[in-house]
Amino acid sequence: MSEFHSTIKTIEWIREGKLGGFSRMIDQTLIPWEYKKVDIKTTEDIYNAIKTMIVRGAPAIGIAGAHGAAICAIELLRENKENFVEELKKGIDYINSSRPTAVNLSWALNEQLKVIEKYNTKEEIVENLILNAIRLENEDIEINKRIGDYGAQIIPKGATILTHCNAGALATVGYGTALGVVRSAYAKDNTIQVFADETRPRQQGAKITTFELVQDKIPTTLITDGMCSYFMSKKMIDVVVVGADRIAANGDTANKIGTYTVAIAAKYHNVPFYIAAPKSTIDMSIKDGSQIPIELRDEEEVTTINGKRICAEGVKVINPSFDVTPNELIAGIITEEGIFKPNELHKLFS
Amino acid sequence: MSEFHSTIKTIEWIREGKLGGFSRMIDQTLIPWEYKKVDIKTTEDIYNAIKTMIVRGAPAIGIAGAHGAAICAIELLRENKENFVEELKKGIDYINSSRPTAVNLSWALNEQLKVIEKYNTKEEIVENLILNAIRLENEDIEINKRIGDYGAQIIPKGATILTHCNAGALATVGYGTALGVVRSAYAKDNTIQVFADETRPRQQGAKITTFELVQDKIPTTLITDGMCSYFMSKKMIDVVVVGADRIAANGDTANKIGTYTVAIAAKYHNVPFYIAAPKSTIDMSIKDGSQIPIELRDEEEVTTINGKRICAEGVKVINPSFDVTPNELIAGIITEEGIFKPNELHKLFS
Repeated sequence: MSEFHSTIKTIEWIREGKLGGFSRMIDQTLIPWEYKKVDIKTTEDIYNAIKTMIVRGAPAIGIAGAHGAAICAIELLRENKENFVEELKKGIDYINSSRPTAVNLSWALNEQLKVIEKYNTKEEIVENLILNAIRLENEDIEINKRIGDYGAQIIPKGATILTHCNAGALATVGYGTALGVVRSAYAKDNTIQVFADETRPRQQGAKITTFELVQDKIPTTLITDGMCSYFMSKKMIDVVVVGADRIAANGDTANKIGTYTVAIAAKYHNVPFYIAAPKSTIDMSIKDGSQIPIELRDEEEVTTINGKRICAEGVKVINPSFDVTPNELIAGIITEEGIFKPNELHKLFS
Repeated sequence: MSEFHSTIKTIEWIREGKLGGFSRMIDQTLIPWEYKKVDIKTTEDIYNAIKTMIVRGAPAIGIAGAHGAAICAIELLRENKENFVEELKKGIDYINSSRPTAVNLSWALNEQLKVIEKYNTKEEIVENLILNAIRLENEDIEINKRIGDYGAQIIPKGATILTHCNAGALATVGYGTALGVVRSAYAKDNTIQVFADETRPRQQGAKITTFELVQDKIPTTLITDGMCSYFMSKKMIDVVVVGADRIAANGDTANKIGTYTVAIAAKYHNVPFYIAAPKSTIDMSIKDGSQIPIELRDEEEVTTINGKRICAEGVKVINPSFDVTPNELIAGIITEEGIFKPNELHKLFS
């Protein structure tokens, strides 16, 4: 791995004593044009950073949520609020409402709620929310490396791997899930290469995935979203690996819009299609994908690129940010505890 | 139909006496921002207009080719060239090399070659190339209206029609092939609506299809290319109708890149997928789609949007402009002589 990615931290807690600190994150709305970190110090700013996608990617917004709970508690401690726990829970609910689809956000906030239940004084709660946020942050990289190592086993020698959106270092604290698999595979076999879907509307594949992989000198070809079938028909793609925002108990998987289309194309061409995601992405409380809430985002993401409108006035837009790939299209789900068939996920929780 | 489309002429021969004239065409690289016509008066400029997609769409570039042959002959007559026919045939070859995939270009140039064989004097040849170009131009609109009327029969009441790229008035002399079907269907049933794929990389769906349909007040929703499966799974798309650049004898169909992906998604969801194209798009000389040449275009179409690079430096790009949808995914091919199954095309030529 390059120096860049062995050191990158997408999101990081900056300590200011035992009862203080803030969240420092790479502003991903500026990539690939600018590489800049921003410091987030208020509950309001955490909400907005997630909502406007300064931080994005299911595991990364989980950590942002954990940081947010700590930031909210620090704010309330500073204001010496009477109803501290009640206000803190309200703050956590507010942060949780920033984006609905990725379950990692509510998973991490629930981890923080457990801390709140466990301690008594405001100071103890603040201190332990901070420590727990740092623990989750550090664990995330370890989890990704384990995902990467399991995933590397299913990558054929010299394979071309297609990925959609960005499930890389910049979607996590570091290393990445789908791109963690790529990194681990590349470390063993530097003849592999990546095809990256542009991923309209927000172009995370073009903007973020190519940025990450070029930094790591992993050969990467950018294609538009509609091209995947063409390259599959030419036998130029050997395997598809993507991330996930929420996986239902039956293995149905929500991921960035367009993933489902790639999965159908892969099935048609007998190209294996894998999900790479931490256990925290799996939501055993819902039976299947029909229960996953799909976020609808602004029309402007579709109608405008680089500040210029690309379509006629008067056209309608529907902009679902995610779609659900049914379990029947998924060859396996690569987690930090191994690779599972969609119908085997219960084994992870027994 | 609106005033706009009953009068639009994407490309038009402007007469200047019996032995003169030029081609006037809408500059489609400026749509939807500007609606401007350009006058093309030299062989070189016809080549460039086709190559740079000032004029695009298989039927429209066929007519541009027919105009080009006339323009080339006018040039040679003016220069009083000795080896007139030989030079003219070279010019026709040159125009034919501007874009390889759409067969309508070589079809129209062949129609002009027949004129050249038929007449003796330079003046007769020039005059009849002009008359033949005007005949082909006028026929195109009539053909599209017949395609539209046949196609309207397969559009269910209140249907939502998905289309890819632009096979509209602006891909033809007027009225359109796939959008001709939409126009004819809408004239009978104004509860139908269109979903338009953006169609990366050049975004003809966003730029040109929405421009055309909004002008005609036909309700249109713009979606990104990856979204089609999402809307099909929600049962929000009833039928797909697209154009074609070349159809092989067995019904395999080349059309704008991304079409094949839509066709696979349609099959998976049992949504019927139709091609709308004039008979001149059918190339009975080739057995199947593997023999259709696929144009590779500039990397910049993928890496840059609205003048701004959207990806990291150092990424590779492959930019096939077309893909081939195999006949097994096609419910029917809508032509000016009726609707045919892919394996029935021979009936059109017997």
